[in-house]
Amino acid sequence: MKERTLANRAEQAQMAMMLEVCAYPKPGNVDRCHDYSDTRLEHFLASTILVRPVFETAERTGGRVGSLIREAVMLTNSHAGGNTHFGAFILLIPLILGGDIEGARRVVAGTDVQDAIDFYAAFGLTQVRVAKSDDLDVNDPESIAAIRERGMTLADIMAYSAPRDMVAREWTNGFALTRQCADLLHAHGHGREAIVRTFLDLLASVPDTFIAKKHGAEAAERTMRCAGEVLRGGRDLRAFDAECINGGINPGSIADITIAGIYVALGEGWQWDC
Amino acid sequence: MKERTLANRAEQAQMAMMLEVCAYPKPGNVDRCHDYSDTRLEHFLASTILVRPVFETAERTGGRVGSLIREAVMLTNSHAGGNTHFGAFILLIPLILGGDIEGARRVVAGTDVQDAIDFYAAFGLTQVRVAKSDDLDVNDPESIAAIRERGMTLADIMAYSAPRDMVAREWTNGFALTRQCADLLHAHGHGREAIVRTFLDLLASVPDTFIAKKHGAEAAERTMRCAGEVLRGGRDLRAFDAECINGGINPGSIADITIAGIYVALGEGWQWDC
Repeated sequence: MKERTLANRAEQAQMAMMLEVCAYPKPGNVDRCHDYSDTRLEHFLASTILVRPVFETAERTGGRVGSLIREAVMLTNSHAGGNTHFGAFILLIPLILGGDIEGARRVVAGTDVQDAIDFYAAFGLTQVRVAKSDDLDVNDPESIAAIRERGMTLADIMAYSAPRDMVAREWTNGFALTRQCADLLHAHGHGREAIVRTFLDLLASVPDTFIAKKHGAEAAERTMRCAGEVLRGGRDLRAFDAECINGGINPGSIADITIAGIYVALGEGWQWDC
Repeated sequence: MKERTLANRAEQAQMAMMLEVCAYPKPGNVDRCHDYSDTRLEHFLASTILVRPVFETAERTGGRVGSLIREAVMLTNSHAGGNTHFGAFILLIPLILGGDIEGARRVVAGTDVQDAIDFYAAFGLTQVRVAKSDDLDVNDPESIAAIRERGMTLADIMAYSAPRDMVAREWTNGFALTRQCADLLHAHGHGREAIVRTFLDLLASVPDTFIAKKHGAEAAERTMRCAGEVLRGGRDLRAFDAECINGGINPGSIADITIAGIYVALGEGWQWDC
């Protein structure tokens, strides 16, 4: 194995996005072996290429986290694959701005109302699912007025969404699952196999909120139990993957957290290339 | 299909590299479904990400083609997958500098001795095969002296290599096969299937010089004949792919030309995303 340090945080983040989508088999998600009819491997890799200018701005000149997330969505929203990395950007942008998890926590603590408003503009550009009970609906112009009136920062918005959204929850708990993901990567060794094993470990330990929003809490918990059976040898990984793909059960939030975890691990010397 | 124009030439070139390696099945080459033990999909995609700064420099501030090729090799040579895109850079750098084929021809016509020397430095960083009879061996320090003494430009070097190397030949014939590749892409419609069909058409019409250097001229001609049989329905594409992979028969030069052809086609409105 050739030891390799990536030149900068922007590259580190792009590599994390690329490595996550290439790793296989990842039950239910687009990977090297599986497309969905409307979202394919090339869409994920196109976003990985096209987002670069925003990551570079975040690294070189900084900027506000809300507007950077909005710009990342704008640059990657132009292909027919729709939103591929919205959740990943919510984690990667503060990580790039702050450098690592410690720095990302400071970025989160420093968000303001304008960040929240820019974030809502980004959200409006995506077709990301919103829980029906949500009174801060992104398609409702009055939400912006409510945010201003209540003086909600982007960190407040994330805290509001955290019970239903594990990506938002990372902003409230100091990136706990991102940290756990990076630790799992280090523990499982280097390269592609470690990513697949880490993904399964996360899938078996926490219900994916993307699945919960799309198919209900029971589906998310069933997926978690099945992943545990795979890890204990009681269920075949490839058969489980096929079941998930056929049912449209894609653990998209755990994929987002895996990308953030790979970014952190790469910054700590984890090697993808072995 | 959502019509999409790429923001700039650098992105267009990166997208071409990504789309080429993802398209499958491409007989004998690394693609979405096949790795070689030492060179994997991730290596090709890592190079696609890591080369960006050189493509941006070529587009924004120009520069000399020889030193840009050397920088591209340096930025992408750090992973264990070795040289993945040397031939592609030889075509893409003049295309980015010049914008299109017309411009690339002017870049080629304007090369000088220093371009040739920088190119040799790039070549020395790769493990690209050199024909044994070659008296301008890249590992021979006297080659540089000979280039200076004879006043050879990079275009002269390419003309010298053209009989044995179809990528070099593009520099001498006005990018004829690159042009043909772009025309085939337009003719075959949009998206991934058009890339696979174009790749097969090229493979069936010209012996790949990368195969010839590695396995001899007869192997390159046999591969060309087999590709023709696939196109005529007399041979199974996936079986042919497996035979090539097992024999290490990888048409790397046609892959390089396919990347250049995708770059040109994207610039002419060809849509990858449908």
